[in-house]
Amino acid sequence: MPDEDIPAGNAVVLYVCATCRTAGDTSEPRAGARLVSALREAVTEAAIEGIAVESVDCLSVCKRPCTVAVASEGRWTYVYGDLDPVESARTILAGIGLYAETPDGIVPWKARPEAFRKGVVARIPPFPPPRADRIPDAAE
Amino acid sequence: MPDEDIPAGNAVVLYVCATCRTAGDTSEPRAGARLVSALREAVTEAAIEGIAVESVDCLSVCKRPCTVAVASEGRWTYVYGDLDPVESARTILAGIGLYAETPDGIVPWKARPEAFRKGVVARIPPFPPPRADRIPDAAE
Repeated sequence: MPDEDIPAGNAVVLYVCATCRTAGDTSEPRAGARLVSALREAVTEAAIEGIAVESVDCLSVCKRPCTVAVASEGRWTYVYGDLDPVESARTILAGIGLYAETPDGIVPWKARPEAFRKGVVARIPPFPPPRADRIPDAAE
Repeated sequence: MPDEDIPAGNAVVLYVCATCRTAGDTSEPRAGARLVSALREAVTEAAIEGIAVESVDCLSVCKRPCTVAVASEGRWTYVYGDLDPVESARTILAGIGLYAETPDGIVPWKARPEAFRKGVVARIPPFPPPRADRIPDAAE
């Protein structure tokens, strides 16, 4: 799926909660750990460049498993929940492909995968705050 | 309140959703905008250094007003909701004071203000991911 490749220099980090458990599911590995594996396999299979899948102990979204966060230099960070531990892997990567094509990480609402529209938990502005939205001096 | 001063070089950005409305409240300015004002006033009154209060259009936590996000270089980012538009200002600043005193942004659970314990929406690891948790080479 070449359309999901991340342009060089636009590296994206995908944090995945490995501790998430779906309701009533006591099996091991946990749903979150299964999502980490599914994402890493999908990235490898499709030879997608520029996405680092990072397993995280907890994203503090315990009521909406499975959960991920997407971050990138100069872009908004997004947190998503209510994700299927296996089936959502390709959807997540497709959504991140769109994210990486934007300058600020904001994908138009209608273009976002349904799982991202329904599952959004929070978004956080780029850090440090960009100054581009301020009126530049005449000399700039 | 000198204990809430942020050590030099440890600047914290406090993103505040100015669009948040509490349930059934149609008054203007909105609850979120009132929280922005309350926080800025509290920072000025107490002459707290090292906190930048940034008004944001939306943090996508619309079901849990008011909402804020706390970010800092090399530290975890935290998102909090269910905050009172005025009364919570001092609590938020006290919590950020504790946050700024840590190397990674993780304040022990029991030390956190109750509003932060109950209101946590999500937390996101430092970006880019720190490498300090990996085993260094013998030469390092």
